Amino acid sequence: MMKLRDRIIAGERAAIAKAITLVESSREEDIIQSHELISELIKSPGHAIRVGFSGPPGVGKSTFIESFGSYIVNKNFKLGVLAIDPSSNFTGGSILGDKTRMSEISKNENTFIRSTPSRGSLGGIAVGTREAAIILDAAGYDYIFIETVGVGQSEITAANLVDIFTLIVGPGSGDELQGIKKGITEYADIFIVNKNDGDLASQASKTASDYKSALSFYNKDSDALETQVVLVSSIENKGMDEVLDSYNKIVNVNKANNQFDKRRENQLAYWLEEEVRNKILLKLRSEKETSELLEREVRRIIVGETGFYAASKVIIDRFLSKK
Amino acid sequence: MMKLRDRIIAGERAAIAKAITLVESSREEDIIQSHELISELIKSPGHAIRVGFSGPPGVGKSTFIESFGSYIVNKNFKLGVLAIDPSSNFTGGSILGDKTRMSEISKNENTFIRSTPSRGSLGGIAVGTREAAIILDAAGYDYIFIETVGVGQSEITAANLVDIFTLIVGPGSGDELQGIKKGITEYADIFIVNKNDGDLASQASKTASDYKSALSFYNKDSDALETQVVLVSSIENKGMDEVLDSYNKIVNVNKANNQFDKRRENQLAYWLEEEVRNKILLKLRSEKETSELLEREVRRIIVGETGFYAASKVIIDRFLSKK
Repeated sequence: MMKLRDRIIAGERAAIAKAITLVESSREEDIIQSHELISELIKSPGHAIRVGFSGPPGVGKSTFIESFGSYIVNKNFKLGVLAIDPSSNFTGGSILGDKTRMSEISKNENTFIRSTPSRGSLGGIAVGTREAAIILDAAGYDYIFIETVGVGQSEITAANLVDIFTLIVGPGSGDELQGIKKGITEYADIFIVNKNDGDLASQASKTASDYKSALSFYNKDSDALETQVVLVSSIENKGMDEVLDSYNKIVNVNKANNQFDKRRENQLAYWLEEEVRNKILLKLRSEKETSELLEREVRRIIVGETGFYAASKVIIDRFLSKK
Repeated sequence: MMKLRDRIIAGERAAIAKAITLVESSREEDIIQSHELISELIKSPGHAIRVGFSGPPGVGKSTFIESFGSYIVNKNFKLGVLAIDPSSNFTGGSILGDKTRMSEISKNENTFIRSTPSRGSLGGIAVGTREAAIILDAAGYDYIFIETVGVGQSEITAANLVDIFTLIVGPGSGDELQGIKKGITEYADIFIVNKNDGDLASQASKTASDYKSALSFYNKDSDALETQVVLVSSIENKGMDEVLDSYNKIVNVNKANNQFDKRRENQLAYWLEEEVRNKILLKLRSEKETSELLEREVRRIIVGETGFYAASKVIIDRFLSKK
């Protein structure tokens, strides 16, 4: 196991891949090994900046990540890309599963790309994404991109994993602006307005101005950096310098005013709570005694011996050993 | 409270609306009242058939529900429509929030339409949707449509609430067919191929044939009804008779071979487990002692006195009172 640690710290790709498979595993022996490995790696932190990406479907999120990823890699940075993929049981599909789209940057030896399916049953958390970021950090990667597919819980998960949270948007109407404002300012450090090209260029430019003025209402905290707005064209590779400049600015300002460390501390608390929640739910699900009690209570409800809420109380009290 | 019960059983709309608001509430006193009310209503079951709808974006799900809903209402059935809406914190939007789309059927006095936001924090479960269906059933509604917005957990939630689970699809390629097959046969009783109109008609027809032959591989269980495939045009109101016929067939066959009751029993077990999970998570989150311990452990991790997994074990053991 410690040999694996050394190989990761040496940046060996096969070791990184093996370690990520390990942290994604739900086999009990793998979990034990995974905890050992992560506990060791966390003692050898690197300097990676974690950047999250989210945005509504159709705004060209993957195209932007490919374009900006290539830009980053061409500047000789090492880049890891992790996707949290809440693929539906029914209609699911992974963005990174579609390898062709990430083809350009995936060929580079300084990139490591991984798509992790989230486990819907545990509330949309991608098992192992946090740990995969720790592995890539220890392996000396400069940037770790964390991409979320879809909406809701996976966005919150991603926001709680990163130093910079990026929202990618398209040239859009005022209506979309209204929708997007609610809640977003809490998480997004930067808005990237994509599709600043061809027929859409003037609309993209107007959208960026609209976001700037809308966001100015929310940027009241004088200490914190205002939310950045950058106009890009992923297909024409325009605006990539500005994005990197904004990222550097966000990191520098947040480090200077202690927000950078503070955020990582808050995220640690978030993940510790998640770990506790998931372990408790796992225990609830796997305990034979609980499932037998559940079955018995269901039978009792059906024959009218108890009610739904009384039955749930019996099970909870038993599980919490308070009865 | 019991007056509210009587008014619901009499089918009074204002009482139904009030009761649904009550079951969606997270206020402690409302929860107590809600449990009382539901425990009473469940003793006066009606005859409602619960039908779930899901499908990828862009297939015309809302248009179909409006078209088929009108058809149902025009046949003098009472129709309730509940939407589970996992609206994103960032980009969310409710299908039924857009009232204009449901305008035709929402005006009818025999329909009751309600959109319930899901609470992402508890794993995408729409708090109160199960209870809202119990209310509408007790109020004498004939059909309760449960629509899921988006993918993943909310589809599983909906599938566990209904007697018939409908997947709406568009005229599509073989690729989509591949994607959709995985997992779906476990849940869907019927595939509705929409957009059998205009230029898309021949493609829709071909898609329906493709689904039929693809599904024939999965329909191996001789006792169970094969998955139905129906071709419709929502904008031309074509195929609505066939949909209702298929629904009747599904209900009749499943009642005859005992699958109808068996499914409701399994769903009861699912919801009882959900109730237990949610209550335990709520307790974990609201206990002052736990949150203080969490904070303390985070500080200890930061200064290197403990590790992430050791800290989580301490909190779990304390919560389960086993230490």
